[in-house]
Amino acid sequence: MKLSSLGEFGLIQRLSTVLGSGSPAQLVLGIGDDAAVWRGTPDCLTLATVDSLVEGVHFDLGTTSWEDLGWKALAENLSDIAAMGGAPRYALVGLGLPAHRTAEEAEALYAGMRECAAAFDCHIVGGDTVRSPVVWLHITVIGESLPVRAGSPPILTRSAAEPGDLIAVTGPLGASAAGLRMLQQNDRSSGSARIIAAHLRPSPRVAAGQVLVEAGVRCAIDISDGLLADVGHICERSKVDAEIDSDLVPVDPDAARAFGSAALDLALTGGEDYELVCTGSRGALDQANSRLQILGEAPVTVIGAIVRQAGEHPEVRLREASGELVVVASGGYQHFG
Amino acid sequence: MKLSSLGEFGLIQRLSTVLGSGSPAQLVLGIGDDAAVWRGTPDCLTLATVDSLVEGVHFDLGTTSWEDLGWKALAENLSDIAAMGGAPRYALVGLGLPAHRTAEEAEALYAGMRECAAAFDCHIVGGDTVRSPVVWLHITVIGESLPVRAGSPPILTRSAAEPGDLIAVTGPLGASAAGLRMLQQNDRSSGSARIIAAHLRPSPRVAAGQVLVEAGVRCAIDISDGLLADVGHICERSKVDAEIDSDLVPVDPDAARAFGSAALDLALTGGEDYELVCTGSRGALDQANSRLQILGEAPVTVIGAIVRQAGEHPEVRLREASGELVVVASGGYQHFG
Repeated sequence: MKLSSLGEFGLIQRLSTVLGSGSPAQLVLGIGDDAAVWRGTPDCLTLATVDSLVEGVHFDLGTTSWEDLGWKALAENLSDIAAMGGAPRYALVGLGLPAHRTAEEAEALYAGMRECAAAFDCHIVGGDTVRSPVVWLHITVIGESLPVRAGSPPILTRSAAEPGDLIAVTGPLGASAAGLRMLQQNDRSSGSARIIAAHLRPSPRVAAGQVLVEAGVRCAIDISDGLLADVGHICERSKVDAEIDSDLVPVDPDAARAFGSAALDLALTGGEDYELVCTGSRGALDQANSRLQILGEAPVTVIGAIVRQAGEHPEVRLREASGELVVVASGGYQHFG
Repeated sequence: MKLSSLGEFGLIQRLSTVLGSGSPAQLVLGIGDDAAVWRGTPDCLTLATVDSLVEGVHFDLGTTSWEDLGWKALAENLSDIAAMGGAPRYALVGLGLPAHRTAEEAEALYAGMRECAAAFDCHIVGGDTVRSPVVWLHITVIGESLPVRAGSPPILTRSAAEPGDLIAVTGPLGASAAGLRMLQQNDRSSGSARIIAAHLRPSPRVAAGQVLVEAGVRCAIDISDGLLADVGHICERSKVDAEIDSDLVPVDPDAARAFGSAALDLALTGGEDYELVCTGSRGALDQANSRLQILGEAPVTVIGAIVRQAGEHPEVRLREASGELVVVASGGYQHFG
């Protein structure tokens, strides 16, 4: 049914049905009033992040299904909470839709979001749907930190890297960018299904983020813009210089099989892997790895180090296979560029 | 400077400068990381609301300045927190901008939001800026309730109206719709400036919402769609029938002067006044009025009553000046219609 026939209130009704009725005990009021209402967990900090996705800028409905779009849009936000070492709790969804779109498409989008939310124990508790010339999605996720104890707040930030820290990543990189290329080339060869799924339905590293905080790590960012660009963000905010050894960067094996030596570039600059890159002491990283093993999660891999306080312009240097050390400019995605 | 030359990170830098550095003691981390982080107030419930505004659908940059757009966009969200009886605390802003727009326009928008935030003790702590074919704004506001004590949660909801309740509004209605007409007609006659300001820079009734909760009122909604439509939302959610006496509805005096008898229609269906309409006992409303008087706030005015449990289709009836009682269909704004 076209949205122009259904109207806003009819659509909200149908989307509420997709979300179902299960809700956590701490939720006082979900969808349907002027605001969602909940009880926070005592002694935990509240975390909040927003992310906007616009048709034609961030996604292409030619290569992405509505379900996958819903999953990925939420996953990107959950990844921001993971990158702070928090647990996601609630999501609010702003949805812009052209009037010629159908209720079934909006329902499929919500089904994908719901699936992702359920996988990470998050609940969609509010939103807003409006008419718009293009499809866009604006998602807010509220999370909570581990309980506050003595010492530094139990969160991961971009600004806590210190000279002497090792740099580590929570898993292999390059799968998402390789998956996007395969989608664009309509490649259905062996191994492609897994990395296309890595692009369409990324898994935010929520458990790993919390393990890192518990182990005493205090600096991380999620890899959305690309490893080098995101380490660049850490360096800018922490005012430090970093060195990364390209030989140590774990490249996704299916990406390597499909793209050979070009896969390293995808791992360094491709982005959207939604792994975490963190900095910390050898002891903290070892402790995190012990715990990750118990949980059946992938271990962190050391790829470099924070080498010094930065000069005026914080730098990320990459040691290439040749042994040469090159300054890599921040290559992050510039949305208005 | 065109956004296409500045890039996303440059824009974020400039917008952060507009917001300034003042932040409340409970804020652990504001703009610049993967998420904002704060300490909640013990014993208070958390409230969260989102609202999206799209150029050409919800606003027209021909009749609205960027500053006014910023004020109003945030004010609409603060009004949702007011309608729950809460105090706004933090806002996160998603901003979509075409690449041909300028940094100065975005800065003016943020200046308007900042002014509104400061007026209501709210802090902009995060956001996302993206390229988009049209301007849109998506704002999330997080608030807190009064402390939880024994009895029902200290919030106002749409679903708590009961037969026997009186219906009251926090101030005169129709100014916003009258102001919009004057803007469209380029009318600059006497009294127009005030009601045009009521349209462009509405004042959410944050203090009144909290006074209502303290006085024991438990049901309210803010008037965004129009009085009759918004009372309709209360009736639907509370499963009750309401009667409103048109003679009792306070019509904005400048709107009445400019539009004569047509001003009543603006008060009943115009919308965007962002006053609150609540239901409660005579005793609770009297107590609220005593407190509002002490605070120098406008009193609530009784305009009708909740008359019975609803049948299958909850109804709002309007007693017209003739004495006739007519069922008024919910005339709310249908975004996809």
